[in-house]
Amino acid sequence: MFWKKKDKRTPVVEHSSLRGRVFLDYVSTTPVVPEVVEKMREVERELWANPSALYGEAISAKEKLVEARQSIANILGCQKNDIVFTSGGTESNNLALLGIFEANRTKDFTPHIVTTKIEHSSILETCKEIERRGGQVTYLPVSNEGIVSIKDVKSAIKENTVLVSVMYANNEIGTIQPIKEIGRIIKNWRQKNMSRMPLDIKLPYFHTDACQGASLTLDLQKLGVDMMTLDGIKMYGPRGAGILYVKSGTNISPVLFGGGQERGLRSGTENLPAAVGLACAMELAEKMKERESVRLTEIRDYAILKILETFPEASLNGSGKLRLPNNINICFPGLDAEFAVISLDVLGIACSYSSSCQTLKEDSSSYVISALGKADCNKSSLRFTLGRESTKEDIDNLVLALQKIIKQN
Amino acid sequence: MFWKKKDKRTPVVEHSSLRGRVFLDYVSTTPVVPEVVEKMREVERELWANPSALYGEAISAKEKLVEARQSIANILGCQKNDIVFTSGGTESNNLALLGIFEANRTKDFTPHIVTTKIEHSSILETCKEIERRGGQVTYLPVSNEGIVSIKDVKSAIKENTVLVSVMYANNEIGTIQPIKEIGRIIKNWRQKNMSRMPLDIKLPYFHTDACQGASLTLDLQKLGVDMMTLDGIKMYGPRGAGILYVKSGTNISPVLFGGGQERGLRSGTENLPAAVGLACAMELAEKMKERESVRLTEIRDYAILKILETFPEASLNGSGKLRLPNNINICFPGLDAEFAVISLDVLGIACSYSSSCQTLKEDSSSYVISALGKADCNKSSLRFTLGRESTKEDIDNLVLALQKIIKQN
Repeated sequence: MFWKKKDKRTPVVEHSSLRGRVFLDYVSTTPVVPEVVEKMREVERELWANPSALYGEAISAKEKLVEARQSIANILGCQKNDIVFTSGGTESNNLALLGIFEANRTKDFTPHIVTTKIEHSSILETCKEIERRGGQVTYLPVSNEGIVSIKDVKSAIKENTVLVSVMYANNEIGTIQPIKEIGRIIKNWRQKNMSRMPLDIKLPYFHTDACQGASLTLDLQKLGVDMMTLDGIKMYGPRGAGILYVKSGTNISPVLFGGGQERGLRSGTENLPAAVGLACAMELAEKMKERESVRLTEIRDYAILKILETFPEASLNGSGKLRLPNNINICFPGLDAEFAVISLDVLGIACSYSSSCQTLKEDSSSYVISALGKADCNKSSLRFTLGRESTKEDIDNLVLALQKIIKQN
Repeated sequence: MFWKKKDKRTPVVEHSSLRGRVFLDYVSTTPVVPEVVEKMREVERELWANPSALYGEAISAKEKLVEARQSIANILGCQKNDIVFTSGGTESNNLALLGIFEANRTKDFTPHIVTTKIEHSSILETCKEIERRGGQVTYLPVSNEGIVSIKDVKSAIKENTVLVSVMYANNEIGTIQPIKEIGRIIKNWRQKNMSRMPLDIKLPYFHTDACQGASLTLDLQKLGVDMMTLDGIKMYGPRGAGILYVKSGTNISPVLFGGGQERGLRSGTENLPAAVGLACAMELAEKMKERESVRLTEIRDYAILKILETFPEASLNGSGKLRLPNNINICFPGLDAEFAVISLDVLGIACSYSSSCQTLKEDSSSYVISALGKADCNKSSLRFTLGRESTKEDIDNLVLALQKIIKQN
């Protein structure tokens, strides 16, 4: 079997489940780094008390929570109290959207939200819920390269716009959106319309779902957002662990009600192992980010070139330049993508068509690819996403496997 | 120091953080059983793929998730698809209440919910949110023993009642509510009013927050509920892991929107380690439940007797009979409970006043104790809750410590 050679190299993240396999779906989940697991175990053993109680054990747990919050705040360049721990990216996105909608609606005021057609389902389905609750949502199109137009964002903002939510990078096609530029537009709009707003509220707020942006800069000062979603499972961190950065002063309501943990924005006993694991994973990711980005970009470009050379009819989905270092999404005209994923699996390759969340829906077509104006490709595209264990050899093996299944088609 | 002897015995759950301490706040959190930790690690190492993807690794993860779901269903006596995994008890309670409210409201129909005054804050705060959204809530009183009256429940049910939510056992005073009897009343009400309802909907639904009921029977057939909340941190299981049992056919909406995982009721990538850990913790708890209940009841009664003998002015809060095996809640007239918890901590005893969630509120008084008609006690009561490591010796040490701080008062 052609991928046998892989056994010999020492993986960056050692996972026996990868032995002899080519894993190319790192955007769907990343393995947990052993160091993160160890930190979580330590917390489970030593610091299992409820951080909100009053005795010594609880205070130690609370201190550890503060420490995790601070170390994440240091990475993002924000105040530690701006970090809200959640159960993951989906909950963070729900909190950002529903939280702003509910906090800012009144009997006489119908909030409006601006987003894009290619957001993750946790944004799009939450927007549908907001419409059901009487809110207004504008879904912006993207270019055939998969990028939202700054001009479109500008003209979509209305007097009742409370929130603009644009993803940092797309989970299917890896295109990077112009977050800084959108941030600037929103800032200008606020300044022009300041007189109409209460002194302490600056509408619209700007949120970015940065679950796929972990390989890019996460410096909040540079990005200019008011809220940002991150998820542990996309950063070699724990499952069930996410954050929502919420700039202090933001007028936002909770979506889960109870004991009032996390500044009242996220009730429920704090999940300390998850918080500590997430902080550790983010620290490790920051350290290797630059080097890893260069390494992956090289493999990505090697892959795109080699696949397009081997299959002349194939085309890249989404911009080649404004693209995550680890994303390869290719349309193979006529291919049944669902069948191809299963066939590649038999040949030792793990990859996906559209997103994992999308596979739960009855419709297997990709709305992201459709939004590029490539309707022919929305059931014929495959996503290969790279990670810390990926090598050029993986790509060679992928191309060999693709040749087998595409010949068979 | 009087609690030194404890070092010599072999704890049921070995946690170095307990060394030399008397931990009496097991209702706030339980340590994670080492076997549960080990199972979670195994999953993190071997089965880290996204259970919703289509390749081999993902399918193995999905199978493990089904297995965890099935083993929990076996314990509860329900169908595996009736188990919705959540991030914990608070989220489960939110899903139960907001989910039923949102699914059953219409323009012409204002849903009504019946609950009690002594529910956990994740129920009471969610009820407040439901009122904010235009719903009606009846908060039933309890007797001076801390038990809700079946008659009160019966007369509170109205034509627009969509849900009755009564906790299985109270987190502060440990009183056990008459769940089976309430279940029967609701069943009768439905039968009488069947003609008014659509064929496929049986209102009102019956939910119980069973987070504190893990030491009681969890057999759903016996309890007669439509929905039940459980939380890993109360069962020596993982943090950030809860379930909501939702009987099939229940008309319920999600509170978190996205990829449609968990039958569409709880979007977000499945937290497989948490699910597997929870199943393991519940299996272990079931095995030792009977024996442990007998053991703890004996220690509890020993404690109550000894404390009341030592402090003649003290009184037990809540029923002595309809009471969890591990709950001791005592009013010490005139005591500043918050100060006492801190003083006992210095003497090596970890305990609490009211609940940990409640300590986050500015008001340190206990609404549960107030509901008993013991307003004098609502800032003067201490809660001591037992767990797998607790012994009569702990109680002896507790009483010695209490004598020190109560003399000082």
